[in-house]
Amino acid sequence: MREGYGDRSPGAGLDTPAPVQGLNSAVRRRAKLGPVSANDAPRAQQPSAPYDSAFLKACRREPVPHTPVWFMRQAGRSLPEYRKVREGVPMLESCMRPELVTEITLQPVRRHGVDAAIYFSDIVVPLKAIGIDLDIKPGVGPVVEHPIRTRADLAQLRDLTPEDVSYVTEAIGLLTRELGSTPLIGFAGAPFTLASYLVEGGPSRTYENAKAMMYGDPELWADLLDRLADITAAFLKVQIEAGASAVQLFDSWAGALAPVDYRRSVLPASAKVFEAVAGYGVPRIHFGVGTGELLGLMGEAGADVVGVDWRVPMDEAARRIGPGKALQGNLDPTVLFAPTEAVEAKTLEVLDSAKDLEGHIFNLGHGVMPSTDPDALTRLVEHVHTRTAR
Amino acid sequence: MREGYGDRSPGAGLDTPAPVQGLNSAVRRRAKLGPVSANDAPRAQQPSAPYDSAFLKACRREPVPHTPVWFMRQAGRSLPEYRKVREGVPMLESCMRPELVTEITLQPVRRHGVDAAIYFSDIVVPLKAIGIDLDIKPGVGPVVEHPIRTRADLAQLRDLTPEDVSYVTEAIGLLTRELGSTPLIGFAGAPFTLASYLVEGGPSRTYENAKAMMYGDPELWADLLDRLADITAAFLKVQIEAGASAVQLFDSWAGALAPVDYRRSVLPASAKVFEAVAGYGVPRIHFGVGTGELLGLMGEAGADVVGVDWRVPMDEAARRIGPGKALQGNLDPTVLFAPTEAVEAKTLEVLDSAKDLEGHIFNLGHGVMPSTDPDALTRLVEHVHTRTAR
Repeated sequence: MREGYGDRSPGAGLDTPAPVQGLNSAVRRRAKLGPVSANDAPRAQQPSAPYDSAFLKACRREPVPHTPVWFMRQAGRSLPEYRKVREGVPMLESCMRPELVTEITLQPVRRHGVDAAIYFSDIVVPLKAIGIDLDIKPGVGPVVEHPIRTRADLAQLRDLTPEDVSYVTEAIGLLTRELGSTPLIGFAGAPFTLASYLVEGGPSRTYENAKAMMYGDPELWADLLDRLADITAAFLKVQIEAGASAVQLFDSWAGALAPVDYRRSVLPASAKVFEAVAGYGVPRIHFGVGTGELLGLMGEAGADVVGVDWRVPMDEAARRIGPGKALQGNLDPTVLFAPTEAVEAKTLEVLDSAKDLEGHIFNLGHGVMPSTDPDALTRLVEHVHTRTAR
Repeated sequence: MREGYGDRSPGAGLDTPAPVQGLNSAVRRRAKLGPVSANDAPRAQQPSAPYDSAFLKACRREPVPHTPVWFMRQAGRSLPEYRKVREGVPMLESCMRPELVTEITLQPVRRHGVDAAIYFSDIVVPLKAIGIDLDIKPGVGPVVEHPIRTRADLAQLRDLTPEDVSYVTEAIGLLTRELGSTPLIGFAGAPFTLASYLVEGGPSRTYENAKAMMYGDPELWADLLDRLADITAAFLKVQIEAGASAVQLFDSWAGALAPVDYRRSVLPASAKVFEAVAGYGVPRIHFGVGTGELLGLMGEAGADVVGVDWRVPMDEAARRIGPGKALQGNLDPTVLFAPTEAVEAKTLEVLDSAKDLEGHIFNLGHGVMPSTDPDALTRLVEHVHTRTAR
C-alpha cells in the first residue's frame, strides 16, 4: 500500500487520478471520504479537524456557522512582519525554506483570524524545481533565461517528482501541525499562466508570443500545456499528500483569452490537472482575474469552487457557472483604501449579492495589494464573521 | 448664425447640447440631418461625401457595400513612416503641430485603405490644453505633476475653450480636405479615464487612489468627473465643428470597475459628454477594454456605437447591449502575430459572430500593438472587404 511519495517511482501516476484506495488515512480524514478502518480516529473525536471548518463546509456547499473568509496574497507584502522576515531573502529562496514558508503562511492566520491559510509559494516554483533557468526579479517578476518558442525547447520540461520539492512536503508537515483545525489551501499556477511566462520569457500584459504560438502552432501549444498540466498535477499531489485540505489553481492571466480560445486551447490542460487530483476528494478552487466570460468554462474544467473577480456580481457569476459549485469572492481590493464605513457598505453589497449561493467563501476579487493597511483586513474579517453569523 | 467657434465667447454652451439649428451647413452634410437650404449642395451631387461612406452607414445601421474597417491606434508606432516623422518630437508636441497631426492621421489611410481615419491625439491633450502640468514620459505614459486628491485641487480644472486647442481646428481643416470621402473620427478620453490619470498622478494598473476617492468621497469624485465631462464635451465639439464625422469616447480603464460602481460613479459623467454632442447628429462611439460587464451601461450612457474588446463574442455583446446600437470590434490584436491563415480563420470567427448585428464596424478588440507587422494589417483590411462584399 502506498503511504506517500517515498515509495513511488518518479513521475508515476501523473496521468491518472490518484486511486482512492491508495490514499493514506490522514488524507482520508481531510477529504470528504471519512474514515475507512478501525485504525482511523472517527471524526466525532476530532471536533476541531479542518474537515469541520467553515471554509471546507462552504467549499462542500454545506451549512456554515458563518461565511468563511480568506484573502488571496494574505501572506505577503501588506504585512510588516512579512517584510521583516523576508529582509535580504530573495523570493524564490524564501519559497524553499520550510521554516520561513511556515512562518509566512501562518502570519495572516494569527493576525487576521482568517478561516484558511494559503500555502506561501510562487507560481513559478515547480518550474524552478524541474530545473528551468528562471529568477524572480524584484519590481519585474519572473524572468526566464531561455523562453520556450520551438518544439525543441519543450525538452526543458521534465516531469516533477516529490523529491524536487521536498521542502514543500516538509513545510506542509510543519504547517498542518501548527494550524490545527484551520485548513491549509495548496497552490499552483495553471498551465496557461505558466506557459505565458515560459513563452514570453517574463511578465507581459499582452502575451503576444504565447498567443502567436497558440494561434499559429496549435499542436506545439497543446503539447506545451499538456506537459505543464502533468507538472502542475504532480505539484498539487505533493501538497495534498503532505496535508493540504484544498487546492487553488490560479490561472492568473486566463482573462486575456476569448471564450472560444479558452475552450479550445486552455480548458483541456486545466481539466487534466483537476482530474488528476479528483480522487483525493479535497475541494479544488479555480481563479483568474478578468474571467467574467470564462466562469462557466472554468467550472466545467473541473473546479468545485470558482473564484470570481470584482467585476461580476456574485449572483450573475452564479448564473454563468450553474448549479453544483461554490463561489469565492469578490470585494474589489482597492475598496480597502477607502474609509471603514465605505468598506463595510461595499462588503454588504458583496454579501447581499452572494446571499442565495449554494456555498460562498468571502475573498477579495484579486490579491491583497501591497500597500493595503493590514488593520483594514482584520476589520474586514471581523465584519464578515459578525454580519454572517448564523 | 454661428459659423464656427470664432464668434463664440470662451466656454459658452458647454453645458447644453448644441442646438441643431445652430450647426453650419458643412456639419449638417456630415450629420444625418442632410441639407436644409438651397445653398446646401444636395447629397446626390456629392456621391463621395463621408456621409455615404460604409463606415458612417454602418454607424447608422444602414445597409453597407462591405463591412467597414479601421483600427484603434492605426496611426502610431506600428508604422515605420510614423516612427520616422516622430523622430525627436516628444509625444505631446507632436499632437500640437497641425501638419504633423495631419500626416500621421493620413498614414494608415494611405497604407491600409481603412474605411475611416482617427484623429491623432492623446487622451491627456485637453488636460494639457487647460494648463495641467503634465507630460508623457516615453516608456511610462502620462505623468501629472500635481495629482488631484482634494477639493482644492479641482481648481486646476478650468473650462476648455476652442482657442486652447486651435491646432486641433487647424489640423482637422487640413485633414478633411485631404481625406475627401473618408470619414474622420474625433477622439477624446472619457471622464473616468482622465480622472484616473489625474488622481493617480500617472499610469496605474489598480487605480487605488482614484477608487479610494470614488468610494471614500463620492461628492468630490462626482464633481471631478462632472468638470472633466464639460472639458471633454468642449474638446469633442471643437473636433465636430472643425469637421469630424464621428467621435469615439475612450474609457480605456473603465473595465476596472464593477457594474454597480460604473453606474453610480461614472455613467452620469459619460452620459453628460454624449448628451452635449447629441445635437450634431454625428455617430458617437464608446469603447473601453475589459468592459464585458459594462457593455449595456456604456450603450445606455448615450453611445450610438459600442466598441467591444476581444473577450466577448459579438453576438453575446449584442445581447447585452440590446437593439438600436451598432457594434465595433473585435479581433484579438495579438492574433496579428500569427501566420496569415490563422489571422484569416480568427477574422472569420469575428465576422460570423457579428453576422446578425444591426450594424458592424470591424476593428481590433484593443489598439494595434507597436510590434505588429503593418502588412498584416493591410492584408486584414483586404480580407474583411473581400469576405463581406455585398
